[in-house]
Amino acid sequence: MRTIDWVDDAIEIVDQTALPQRMVTIRITTVDDLVDAIGRLAIRGAPALGVAGALGVALAVRAHAGGLGDGRSLAAAVEKIATARPTAVNLAKGVQRAADAIADGPESVLAAALKVRDEEIAASGAMARLGADLITELCGQRPRLLTHCNTGALAAVVGGTALAVAFELHRRGALAGVVASETRPLLQGSRLTAWELAEAGIDHRVAVDSAGPYLMARGEIDAVIIGADRICANGDVVNKVGSYAHALGAGAVGIPFVCVAPESTIDMTTRSGDEVTIEDRGPGEVLSFAGVPVAPPTANAVNPAFDVTPSGYVTAIVTDQRVIRLDRGERP
Amino acid sequence: MRTIDWVDDAIEIVDQTALPQRMVTIRITTVDDLVDAIGRLAIRGAPALGVAGALGVALAVRAHAGGLGDGRSLAAAVEKIATARPTAVNLAKGVQRAADAIADGPESVLAAALKVRDEEIAASGAMARLGADLITELCGQRPRLLTHCNTGALAAVVGGTALAVAFELHRRGALAGVVASETRPLLQGSRLTAWELAEAGIDHRVAVDSAGPYLMARGEIDAVIIGADRICANGDVVNKVGSYAHALGAGAVGIPFVCVAPESTIDMTTRSGDEVTIEDRGPGEVLSFAGVPVAPPTANAVNPAFDVTPSGYVTAIVTDQRVIRLDRGERP
Repeated sequence: MRTIDWVDDAIEIVDQTALPQRMVTIRITTVDDLVDAIGRLAIRGAPALGVAGALGVALAVRAHAGGLGDGRSLAAAVEKIATARPTAVNLAKGVQRAADAIADGPESVLAAALKVRDEEIAASGAMARLGADLITELCGQRPRLLTHCNTGALAAVVGGTALAVAFELHRRGALAGVVASETRPLLQGSRLTAWELAEAGIDHRVAVDSAGPYLMARGEIDAVIIGADRICANGDVVNKVGSYAHALGAGAVGIPFVCVAPESTIDMTTRSGDEVTIEDRGPGEVLSFAGVPVAPPTANAVNPAFDVTPSGYVTAIVTDQRVIRLDRGERP
Repeated sequence: MRTIDWVDDAIEIVDQTALPQRMVTIRITTVDDLVDAIGRLAIRGAPALGVAGALGVALAVRAHAGGLGDGRSLAAAVEKIATARPTAVNLAKGVQRAADAIADGPESVLAAALKVRDEEIAASGAMARLGADLITELCGQRPRLLTHCNTGALAAVVGGTALAVAFELHRRGALAGVVASETRPLLQGSRLTAWELAEAGIDHRVAVDSAGPYLMARGEIDAVIIGADRICANGDVVNKVGSYAHALGAGAVGIPFVCVAPESTIDMTTRSGDEVTIEDRGPGEVLSFAGVPVAPPTANAVNPAFDVTPSGYVTAIVTDQRVIRLDRGERP
């Protein structure tokens, strides 16, 4: 089962908003439907967004080639996909790679998009192996990990990033268990990560996000592993809001804080986290919980979807090609 | 309006689980109903629990004096109230103060319990003034505060602790606004604190708990103010889970982290946070909300209701009698 794929001239995705109650596959045939699915996080996760962006361009090109364009120029449709969410660099990069083939015709665009997909699949396996090696080196046998948000197969095409490392350690018999932070406001941790851990047969517990640093202080966590939506040239990691708080917790007790992401997440054109646009997703997600309103109707909210973990709090970045030991002064 | 009071031979409380949708008053006439209300957090907050404990003993004594005891000894009923929740010291202290008067008869017990109530009311005003003076001294005019959980009138009889400081600053025209952490799992921040801030006309925004440290790093917060469920002899602060993560955030950027609590919260018999029993409230609160499940049925959870902020991360403790500058080496 792939989280996102190209099937019969359309994009098929596993709807992330329906899990864990229901496994629903959505078939997307228009750019507008894709942008909507990205905006409401039916498809999410940096690697999956990269593939969505590339396949979205293939969709746009085919619609225009077949006379099915909606009147907007192809360039406008491509731009609309690239900017559907501002923070994850993979989305814009995936769009760009497919768009670079537009002059060569629709089949070349699709081929470029499928190449993005296949590279993400290959990257996941490579990251899992490199990351598992590193965690074992840093923590010894059978560590207890904490992870935030969802970085498993549901954030990629298959496998995932940080959670793929947990899967690999489990396969090796070298993992004690995982604490999954629930990841408010949209609960990717409790809804998606707990579901993937259960499917994999990995011992796990869900915790509210603010408990993470305390569980570390209590000695219950040996390392924190997270993904990334954008890695800056100086090693700053932009990831789901709450990553920074967990990094502070890890730093306070001296356990490793490891970021696992494909090379495509590294953005050497962004010098540091200060330059990254952090998406604010508005008050609705914060002032309700699983569809239930939880605050007075007059309340306002601040809702940054991501935060910046300065490189000084990051032990290492693991990509599909290398391990960057920030704790030893290495940089992307 | 008082959050808890003695009315016509019974305890009346504002039901904290019904807010902000409905303002419901519950009349409690038996020890079992009181213990149940404490257990499900219909009444909560360290000062309010102190009063609940004392009034609960008055209830138990009257039932036994009137021959309405349920067969258990009075001592067993008193013990049941004192241990209804393990972490907040005020509950056990309030129970003890009322129980100390048992030999003098029911009216003396009630008088002792009402004295606990009246002292908490007076303490709130004193804390508000001392705390507001300190915040202005530390942050200058019109700071932007962040607070966690609910420490307002709903956590006390009237006024509150940390939130009472915000109310006092607002009255003085010396407050820019407040960020209220939502406080998972039971959302006392979005449900109760946002409601109290709106009632007071204070500019406020709700944030998910894990965003707090990032908002501090982004320069949007000038100080963090929290309450306490128990303050240890060495200055360690035991408070709602997430307090420690916010303290790490404040420490990372060098803004004050201030704890506001009545003297009754200081427990000189507990040397440090290591000695405190931290209540785990079970998986249900984490894995569902308002009856809506948010995780797969197979998921487990870890749910510490409190955490320990080591004294080194606490700038100052404000009580109704004094300001303890932990940052200058002072201790309770």
